[in-house]
Amino acid sequence: MKINGKHTRSIWAVGEDAFGIFDQTRLPHEVVTLTIRTPEDAAHAIKSMQTRGAPLIGAVGAYGLALAVRNDPSDDAIQHMVEMLAETRPTAINLKWALWRMRGLLLNQPRDKRAALAWAEAAAIADEDAAMCEAIGRNGLEIIRDLHRKKGGKLNILTHCNAGWLATVDWGTALAPIYMAHDEGIPLHVFVDETRPRNQGASLTAFELGAHGVAHTIIADNAGGHYMMNGDVDMCVVGTDRVTANGDVANKIGTYLKALAAKDNGVPFYVALPSSTIDWTLSSGRDIPIEERSADEVLKMTGRTPSGSVLTVEIAAPGSPAANPGFDVTPARLVTGFITERGTCAATEQGLRSLFPAA
Amino acid sequence: MKINGKHTRSIWAVGEDAFGIFDQTRLPHEVVTLTIRTPEDAAHAIKSMQTRGAPLIGAVGAYGLALAVRNDPSDDAIQHMVEMLAETRPTAINLKWALWRMRGLLLNQPRDKRAALAWAEAAAIADEDAAMCEAIGRNGLEIIRDLHRKKGGKLNILTHCNAGWLATVDWGTALAPIYMAHDEGIPLHVFVDETRPRNQGASLTAFELGAHGVAHTIIADNAGGHYMMNGDVDMCVVGTDRVTANGDVANKIGTYLKALAAKDNGVPFYVALPSSTIDWTLSSGRDIPIEERSADEVLKMTGRTPSGSVLTVEIAAPGSPAANPGFDVTPARLVTGFITERGTCAATEQGLRSLFPAA
Repeated sequence: MKINGKHTRSIWAVGEDAFGIFDQTRLPHEVVTLTIRTPEDAAHAIKSMQTRGAPLIGAVGAYGLALAVRNDPSDDAIQHMVEMLAETRPTAINLKWALWRMRGLLLNQPRDKRAALAWAEAAAIADEDAAMCEAIGRNGLEIIRDLHRKKGGKLNILTHCNAGWLATVDWGTALAPIYMAHDEGIPLHVFVDETRPRNQGASLTAFELGAHGVAHTIIADNAGGHYMMNGDVDMCVVGTDRVTANGDVANKIGTYLKALAAKDNGVPFYVALPSSTIDWTLSSGRDIPIEERSADEVLKMTGRTPSGSVLTVEIAAPGSPAANPGFDVTPARLVTGFITERGTCAATEQGLRSLFPAA
Repeated sequence: MKINGKHTRSIWAVGEDAFGIFDQTRLPHEVVTLTIRTPEDAAHAIKSMQTRGAPLIGAVGAYGLALAVRNDPSDDAIQHMVEMLAETRPTAINLKWALWRMRGLLLNQPRDKRAALAWAEAAAIADEDAAMCEAIGRNGLEIIRDLHRKKGGKLNILTHCNAGWLATVDWGTALAPIYMAHDEGIPLHVFVDETRPRNQGASLTAFELGAHGVAHTIIADNAGGHYMMNGDVDMCVVGTDRVTANGDVANKIGTYLKALAAKDNGVPFYVALPSSTIDWTLSSGRDIPIEERSADEVLKMTGRTPSGSVLTVEIAAPGSPAANPGFDVTPARLVTGFITERGTCAATEQGLRSLFPAA
């Protein structure tokens, strides 16, 4: 992704004892970067969603653990820090995947080598994520090319939440094919679900697409079904926080509703993911823990005031309670296909195994 | 509905040359009433959604026309004012129904009697709406009693937008059975879709339910499918702006998505309406005009600041465009049944004709 013409990742090493991220809670109102120097700050950044997106928080968790190992490379400290970081967000599996990979490597190494190894492994996880997302982009591009060949004219693609550059180390998952299709001149337009309650669509996806020059329109989460019924959507593509072995998909709350509308209207519904998002240990989406987040995310909204400052206002009836499940599960039967770094496949265990037989 | 213990309607006559309404754009932050003295002010109140809800804007249109007739009772003036008021909101049919009823009556009467007749007819339309909603409440109450008998324990009912007292002259449509069930001691809890972009759920439905003491939880529009999949919703009930002869339902944008989720999870999905909402002239929901509203409703949000003032903030990525269809169409096949003032029926032409054979 280019920011002001310069290629930028969404996470970067700062020397060998810190790393940088964008404070995504400040976007799109302000572009603010954070330098993370302790594992506790990394945990806070994940929990408060200063950094978010299933693939990206895997890399943040890995770097956070690497900072911890620099202070204390003991088995106990590594075990404790893995647990502390893993519990910051319960639904996305990539975070646990990255932490377990780090732990598995480090505990088998002499303590005096662990700090350097941890730092190198965190960098490797970040590099691999960027490479996987680029491959997802190339594989998804084939689908968009096909649709364009069949339909001709401008393609309309709907996405939910943010599964772009800001959700990964680079490129994005769901947005990677869109960027590549745009770059090779396929005319397209993206319907961006605003994605209440945290508005990652209106804040982050619209920000990304605008920065890259991709035509887009922000819509209320309520509107996607109407557009699909009217034939205005050629394809849906979303990311995911965890895919179970049978192909069920946990993703941002509201994804299930769009998948239902896509099915009802014959619109292809794709889910883009790196293989680190697959949880082979769960046989069904029913077993995925769904994070319950603060009611304040529903009851309040942050935005720019007419004077240019950023302010949070209370939007709901005073005294009314709210509930805020962060994710829902889209059953595999509603998913047209998965777009992975190794190619596309059916949303079934057989489909996943055809690409990842040894996992 | 009681406000501070006093029975209050959502529209009331002020002498014979004005009428009062609540400014619903100020709720839930402030309770402000407006006195409407001209047909132009009535049109503005409808268009700006100071007053809204399909049944209520029928009564507002009728009173607005009555104000016009007081100034100029000529055929031309009546015809002109009916057209001016009818075009303020294109989707709801009740407004046109009320205006055509007024016109049909007035054009057949001597000019010197028209002003008094118009005022009396507007009052009759308001009284009839209140009576119809009370009957809808009684008929819907039977459904809730049945569910409670079968399930035992607390019932969870999901609603979208505001189809309560504030959307009608009194009682509400979808909320009338809920108020009656609550009043007779059936334990229930309402999931209130916040209903972006104008948040009528979080602002108005939560305000009403809170004022009446009904347990409720505001949720993002994205969350209802998740709760239905988890077995946490026993019934959905919504209002409607227009039902076509075949049983298709135009209602607030996002209703279709909830109806899909209800169908997918075996949750009964009811639509409550006075018969003035049925458009016998249209054979399918595809023919209903869908109002496109201002993008600002998506891009901005109004709320209370920490200092207690009310402020509008911009919430989306600067420069990103938005689109804002106000309604969608729920196909009749997704609707369990209609709750009308004459009883409940299947969402089919046959079902509607069984209750309204002569319409």
